[in-house]
Amino acid sequence: MFDLIIIGAGPGGYEMAERAGHRGQNVLLIEKADLGGVCLNHGCIPTKTLLNSAKHYVHAKEASAFGVTTGEVSIDLKKVMAWKQEVIQTLRAGIAGLMKKSKVTVLKGEAKFIGPGKVEVDGEVHEGKNVVIATGGSPFVPPIPGADQEHVMTSKEILNLEELPKSLVVIGGGVIGIEFASFFSSLGVKVDIIEMLDEIIPFMDRGQAKRFRAALRGKVDFNLGCKVTSIDGNDVKYTDQKGAEQSIHADIVLMSVGRVPNLGNMGFEEARLDFDRKGIKTDDQMRTNLPNVYAIGDVTGKSQLAHSATRMGEVALNTILGKADRFRTNAIPWAVYSMPEIAGCGLTEKQAKEAGFNPESATLPLMMSGRFLAENGKKGPGQVTVVKDANTDVLLGVHMFGGYSSEIIWGVAAMIEAELRIQDIQEIVFPHPTVGEVIRSTMFSF
Amino acid sequence: MFDLIIIGAGPGGYEMAERAGHRGQNVLLIEKADLGGVCLNHGCIPTKTLLNSAKHYVHAKEASAFGVTTGEVSIDLKKVMAWKQEVIQTLRAGIAGLMKKSKVTVLKGEAKFIGPGKVEVDGEVHEGKNVVIATGGSPFVPPIPGADQEHVMTSKEILNLEELPKSLVVIGGGVIGIEFASFFSSLGVKVDIIEMLDEIIPFMDRGQAKRFRAALRGKVDFNLGCKVTSIDGNDVKYTDQKGAEQSIHADIVLMSVGRVPNLGNMGFEEARLDFDRKGIKTDDQMRTNLPNVYAIGDVTGKSQLAHSATRMGEVALNTILGKADRFRTNAIPWAVYSMPEIAGCGLTEKQAKEAGFNPESATLPLMMSGRFLAENGKKGPGQVTVVKDANTDVLLGVHMFGGYSSEIIWGVAAMIEAELRIQDIQEIVFPHPTVGEVIRSTMFSF
Repeated sequence: MFDLIIIGAGPGGYEMAERAGHRGQNVLLIEKADLGGVCLNHGCIPTKTLLNSAKHYVHAKEASAFGVTTGEVSIDLKKVMAWKQEVIQTLRAGIAGLMKKSKVTVLKGEAKFIGPGKVEVDGEVHEGKNVVIATGGSPFVPPIPGADQEHVMTSKEILNLEELPKSLVVIGGGVIGIEFASFFSSLGVKVDIIEMLDEIIPFMDRGQAKRFRAALRGKVDFNLGCKVTSIDGNDVKYTDQKGAEQSIHADIVLMSVGRVPNLGNMGFEEARLDFDRKGIKTDDQMRTNLPNVYAIGDVTGKSQLAHSATRMGEVALNTILGKADRFRTNAIPWAVYSMPEIAGCGLTEKQAKEAGFNPESATLPLMMSGRFLAENGKKGPGQVTVVKDANTDVLLGVHMFGGYSSEIIWGVAAMIEAELRIQDIQEIVFPHPTVGEVIRSTMFSF
Repeated sequence: MFDLIIIGAGPGGYEMAERAGHRGQNVLLIEKADLGGVCLNHGCIPTKTLLNSAKHYVHAKEASAFGVTTGEVSIDLKKVMAWKQEVIQTLRAGIAGLMKKSKVTVLKGEAKFIGPGKVEVDGEVHEGKNVVIATGGSPFVPPIPGADQEHVMTSKEILNLEELPKSLVVIGGGVIGIEFASFFSSLGVKVDIIEMLDEIIPFMDRGQAKRFRAALRGKVDFNLGCKVTSIDGNDVKYTDQKGAEQSIHADIVLMSVGRVPNLGNMGFEEARLDFDRKGIKTDDQMRTNLPNVYAIGDVTGKSQLAHSATRMGEVALNTILGKADRFRTNAIPWAVYSMPEIAGCGLTEKQAKEAGFNPESATLPLMMSGRFLAENGKKGPGQVTVVKDANTDVLLGVHMFGGYSSEIIWGVAAMIEAELRIQDIQEIVFPHPTVGEVIRSTMFSF
């Protein structure tokens, strides 16, 4: 009898397992594939590794602006992929070590959920006081004719390419699509994005999304408001905004239109777990409708981010251990590791209005930062937008792109959680010269 | 009659002038040299621009680890310096534009403080309701025999080098010394640091300082506990820890043993302003002993950081305008832009003990971050140390080196200002995968 059975060893499951073990729980962690889940094996980590190589490539090519000359700069995708694989292996081994240290029993196999307290793996039933479902999600492949061809890939397969294509069509302008578009276009691949909606990345500030696209002009072609109808060999056919039929040739097609929770063939229906196609339903302490059964991460459909999954696992663990906690969604930062980077936390002005606030926003270019100018040249794109509630002066959100956005944004989560007002933040000292201090300057432009 | 006369247009003076103008004050800003002060013209900005070039050089050289080949990489110091100069000019023009926009009168000339309300420039007396002294500081050159030779430079002159020396001796292992040592050593110059104390950077966590030095092994030689006695031609002579006489040959010697406030020949003594060799004395609202006379920035000796000067200017302005404010020093972040970067905010464990807390600290390597591994390879140096008060669980400080430390640290200032406890911070979501999230992981290792 385990204290805790966790199904799925992604950033939701394995981190919860570690912390539960650390707090004295006897934990069984079941994983059908590799430790680390999608994030480590086919998601966040491999993409960031590739983008790091692309950044070295681009920086070497642009170095002459800063007085550094190089010979011819080239990139070897095989070597890039080999380093990516080494990173994955290193981190997998790290997780295995953590599990051992936390005395977590790791079982490889396909789990079948039988009901509260019971999970079957390879015919053997394991019992646990609590069960946590952390089975994650998978890329959604829409039923487009021709989508089953070998050169039509999801984010999983494209991570194993060993040669650069000449051209790439990315279907879907969300985070995954933008990161791959940035990676391949920066290496000289002709990249088109086809997006059904009229703007990329739905949760990004609309004004910034537009300026971000402008920053990629000449590198990526954006086809917005366009609907793919079929993939005919290497021709991606779509209907454009005006309803006209169009076609783009692509060596490789990346399908990145969204992700769906992993719900099938695991006994959820038979056990009368409450879920729909969006995910398993939980309260904000991650409890499902079944007693002592919790769900965390992508499978809940609440927030498809690795760090959200980790946080949900912590909330579930605290709930199990009787410590008050709650999964809040108002201060979850997110980042896109494209060139330039994008990041945000909290509400955009539009979202704030919809949520009933009386929002006011202020925007400044990152070029206000001496460091940003020194490192990006006079045309470096980037800006910060701060949103506050005009009635209370409370900070509602910060959205930015350019510079080190992904590493800067976490402090905004701290400020929103602490419910700071703009006048409080004006008294906080930011280090100079940094890119991040433009957030502070923006606080003074209201 | 002006509302406000500010002497000195560094980051203390010009930012205060801008904000005062923005709030309707009629401001006179007096500067004897260039807008932007030491920070822009001979300090933060030029050094960061040089270090950005050095980073491009080093990254290009190391790119093969990530699948990128570059041919031979070289750096042209003349071009580096030209770009540095362009950055300075651009930012100076930016400040001039800001002053115009804020309707600040800028006067070039040497100011003489006559007394409350009266400042003379070139024989003309200007009157203002309030006077702010923001005259900054200068490098201290100790009276060492031979220190007056042309190849013995301060941080000001060394910024105009047009050719790389073969060897450099840096006297003083503080922030300025470390940044120049990092810059020159990364470009292949043989660099020795001679430091009188037994460790570099006094306000850095002692354990981290040691590890940081280890990370520079083979690039910079550290001679700690050593006292320079003379500079005999190109030979820097010093007494080592054991009292033995030693000598190091150096093409160039950088004198970076500290800075002193600019107090001379400006009428301070005659006007009976209260100051000593450490600086002008003020209360924590930046008031001096004279009515309606304030002092901010390096000249106060309170905190020799550009962002501290800016903050002091804001406090002085709020005080003048009758808004409650106070210059607090418990949450001022600082950063060193070396390779690897160093940053900190709040107390180290040692400082916390001295301040009467019951501190407890936890440390994790940055290698915990998948992004850090992907971008720095398996040997990338870096770590985070978190200090809390064991009695109250309140965060006291975070110190780190490696990765994007300089851009990550600001959020710590926000957390310390908000007086968050470790258990509060554990509920804040950091984005994954970032280097910054190691701060969060460290919160869980108590």
